[in-house]
Amino acid sequence: MIITAGVDVGGTKILGVALRADAPGKSGVDVLGEVRVPTPDETSTALDAVAEVVRRLDAGVDGVEAVGLGVAGLVDQRGVLRASPHVTALRGVDVCGEMRRRLGDRVVWVDNDATGATWAEHVAGAARGADDAVFVGLGTGIGSGLIANGALVRGPRGFGGEAGHMVVDPAGPPCSCGRSGCWERFASGSGLARLGRDAAEAGRLARAMALAGGAPHLVRGEHIARAASEGDEEALDVLQAFARWVALGIGNLVTIFGCSLVVVGGGLVKMGDLLLDPVRAAFPDDVMAAAERRDVRIVAAELGERAAAIGAALLAAHPDTPAP
Amino acid sequence: MIITAGVDVGGTKILGVALRADAPGKSGVDVLGEVRVPTPDETSTALDAVAEVVRRLDAGVDGVEAVGLGVAGLVDQRGVLRASPHVTALRGVDVCGEMRRRLGDRVVWVDNDATGATWAEHVAGAARGADDAVFVGLGTGIGSGLIANGALVRGPRGFGGEAGHMVVDPAGPPCSCGRSGCWERFASGSGLARLGRDAAEAGRLARAMALAGGAPHLVRGEHIARAASEGDEEALDVLQAFARWVALGIGNLVTIFGCSLVVVGGGLVKMGDLLLDPVRAAFPDDVMAAAERRDVRIVAAELGERAAAIGAALLAAHPDTPAP
Repeated sequence: MIITAGVDVGGTKILGVALRADAPGKSGVDVLGEVRVPTPDETSTALDAVAEVVRRLDAGVDGVEAVGLGVAGLVDQRGVLRASPHVTALRGVDVCGEMRRRLGDRVVWVDNDATGATWAEHVAGAARGADDAVFVGLGTGIGSGLIANGALVRGPRGFGGEAGHMVVDPAGPPCSCGRSGCWERFASGSGLARLGRDAAEAGRLARAMALAGGAPHLVRGEHIARAASEGDEEALDVLQAFARWVALGIGNLVTIFGCSLVVVGGGLVKMGDLLLDPVRAAFPDDVMAAAERRDVRIVAAELGERAAAIGAALLAAHPDTPAP
Repeated sequence: MIITAGVDVGGTKILGVALRADAPGKSGVDVLGEVRVPTPDETSTALDAVAEVVRRLDAGVDGVEAVGLGVAGLVDQRGVLRASPHVTALRGVDVCGEMRRRLGDRVVWVDNDATGATWAEHVAGAARGADDAVFVGLGTGIGSGLIANGALVRGPRGFGGEAGHMVVDPAGPPCSCGRSGCWERFASGSGLARLGRDAAEAGRLARAMALAGGAPHLVRGEHIARAASEGDEEALDVLQAFARWVALGIGNLVTIFGCSLVVVGGGLVKMGDLLLDPVRAAFPDDVMAAAERRDVRIVAAELGERAAAIGAALLAAHPDTPAP
């Protein structure tokens, strides 16, 4: 039995968990502790904060042997964050090397956050038992991961899973990656907020705007979600428009991969069926040969916002398992 | 040693090959014979024509034990063509059952044409030795296939690989699949012809139009390619605009999969570097974090237009090999 820590290093928060890692393939994870702190802006302070999270987890469980980190962006096989639109503090940093220096004689594994979440959902969540599945994490941006033939699809450098940056409208708005019209401009939390602001500025979305404090530019996804959950028609309309963009990208991924299971995670999935039902309703218009896709299930991630941290912990305990 | 036949059943032609199938993984295929006939429009005539192609191959080599068919569209695991924008004669047909009735006591394997081409390029072509690669076949439409961790990514029903129908512009022109703005509307042979017609109608592309017989609506990809190969600037401009669309989809696939090898096949790749050089030049603008993708190679398929037939033959000889 290995005790392992997983830390999801996001653009705004660092979320760590400690768990007993059974051999992946068996169901269930046993989370022993959780620590959450804001992400500092500066590189060495951010790295120190991650190390401190691990030490606090360690103190709680006494004996973390392996540490996994999940970071949004392109993490290469040495654990260097080669590119990252959102985690600016660690961009270009040898995260693995820096954490080894700070954590002493422990296994350290650094991976893309959505890769971890995908693996966690496959081992112990909504994709348990599925040999083929797509994971889509809708947060500030969009992370993604693919399980094919029972294994993670990483690519030779570990860069697989940036579906948020597939271009779905070449004439679309500029993206944080430097290009234009990426899927995450439309279907992430910031995409939802943008739709909300546009609606509020056009004189709609009164209830969400009231919840946000009265000004269009303050409207965020959570206000739209709250108003929609109260049955506000204008908020439901915005959510439906947003769901069409989510479905467009999911439809593309199912068309490309031919998988029958799509697991939706990330912060936005807290909305549950309020979001997923309109996505499911829109999906047949957004996939090639919809009549042959009736078996496709679009489900919520089961491990919630801890999926990336749990996955990083599992990968650190068994770094060889993702390969087939 | 198994002698096997592979037949690529396209919208316009049926192309069959006979070959000795070594265990996949070893390099090289030994093509013993080739037969080519037009595709009949009517279902039973088309099935009879495929059977006749196999019999002619059989007569040449004396003893075809297994027969593989590659068909564009969604081929399920029983060998039924569930959906196909281009091969109308076999749409909805139990191709495997019908061919077994016609071919007697032989192994019959039916698969997507691009899946076969992908496998053939992996076993004996441009993706030999690559554990991760994307295949993109640019013909009348676009077929695609993915090798991840050394195995084909098929999905649970075998429907993987319809990247031609990822939507890259929701406001784009209608597609043969019933939706709008699919990649193959822009980046296939018909997409090139459309760009050519538009240019000719706008008073450009005089040389290609002359080669086509003098009218804008007669301009096809081959005329543009011919004029471009002569150095005609207007044809080169059209080819460059076309290459941008090809690069857009390839960039999306590399962004999603993280692979470092893209094999381009299909009829259009006869143009060679005349097409691939502008695609390579455009690619950095069409992939997330281009600075980290300098290792990505975009290469021509080595098995040419026979790739799908060769792949179908290999899969029929070893139908268990695609799984990991």
